[in-house]
Amino acid sequence: MKIGFIGSGNVGQTLGSSLIKLGHDVKLGARSPEKLNTWLEQFGQGERASVGSFQEAAEHGELIFNATPGTASLDALLVAGHNALRGKILIDVALPLNFLNGELSLSVANTDCLGEQIQRAFPEVKVVKTLNTVNSTLMVNPLSLADGQHDLFISGNDTDAKSKVMGYLKEWFGWRSIIDLGDISSARGTEMLLALSSRVYGAVGHPNFSFKIVSKT
Amino acid sequence: MKIGFIGSGNVGQTLGSSLIKLGHDVKLGARSPEKLNTWLEQFGQGERASVGSFQEAAEHGELIFNATPGTASLDALLVAGHNALRGKILIDVALPLNFLNGELSLSVANTDCLGEQIQRAFPEVKVVKTLNTVNSTLMVNPLSLADGQHDLFISGNDTDAKSKVMGYLKEWFGWRSIIDLGDISSARGTEMLLALSSRVYGAVGHPNFSFKIVSKT
Repeated sequence: MKIGFIGSGNVGQTLGSSLIKLGHDVKLGARSPEKLNTWLEQFGQGERASVGSFQEAAEHGELIFNATPGTASLDALLVAGHNALRGKILIDVALPLNFLNGELSLSVANTDCLGEQIQRAFPEVKVVKTLNTVNSTLMVNPLSLADGQHDLFISGNDTDAKSKVMGYLKEWFGWRSIIDLGDISSARGTEMLLALSSRVYGAVGHPNFSFKIVSKT
Repeated sequence: MKIGFIGSGNVGQTLGSSLIKLGHDVKLGARSPEKLNTWLEQFGQGERASVGSFQEAAEHGELIFNATPGTASLDALLVAGHNALRGKILIDVALPLNFLNGELSLSVANTDCLGEQIQRAFPEVKVVKTLNTVNSTLMVNPLSLADGQHDLFISGNDTDAKSKVMGYLKEWFGWRSIIDLGDISSARGTEMLLALSSRVYGAVGHPNFSFKIVSKT
């Protein structure tokens, strides 16, 4: 599949590399694509890895990832452009993190969230929020932790788009359990989980953890 | 132990009943204590169950629970009074829930939380936030779910107070795993978890669930 990335930091590179190795045709979009030459060099001639502007990445993809820092996401998506994104599924993995005076918080929370902001700004795009509760290593290799016995969450207004993305995540990376939380406003829950995750990180001493819902059956 | 409750709704009654059955001397504090006669009637003459005003409950307890609705907690604790609470451990289990136009949110979140508000208003009290990620049934009977293989979280500025509360929760109710998230500001994480919990409730269809941190060892 042709996949475009808006954002080319650690998360975009990790997801992109994994998808290229799975045989997909990936274009990482960046404000300064020339900075990605080192990333590109790891792939051979026959592999379909490329870089470009946000707009070029959005035009390239049948499926788009938003892997920008959350506070820069709306600007980056506007640069990518409504025309290039129209009608496509946008997998939003971004977290709207604010670091102010050494304290971590969210730039939007509680009565709104980044996923909703993006969906409102791009009503013609199918925004699906997921993967935003684990680090990039676990995103692409959930089976490396407890044989995959932990949960991912998914939010979005378009049921068909969510269903497709759940299928991709299971097929590509081996995710076993993906809980459908509801419409895009339910992404408040996974974005706000950052406030707990950041403290769990401190308590366990590393970022290789995930959440599991333990429920009566 | 003499235990006082500020708040006498479902959570206060469930915790209070459980502690009375364990042999503790519990006073439930309410704005209208006479409404608790039905609750009181379940206990026999020899059992140390009583009701009273917020102030009477706070004076009674060597240990205090805040089990009021979160949006009413500060007012209720002020009615209980600084003198009655001074120097004591206050186990804060409240969630600052707002229902506005049918939508659930928190009255404080992200850069502050109820636990911190209480600690600032009562600097002479040892505020320990815990139990606020599960429903009242699971609070007092964690072993009823997956043999207790799920996590509770705890936040507070006073290490000794947290240590004591962890001991109580293990001894009284059988909690097996309690993760110390840090100072009282880490209670933002568990209070904000409500945004996820409310959607997980919708997804699993019942409130009998809890969270587990799945972590590389």
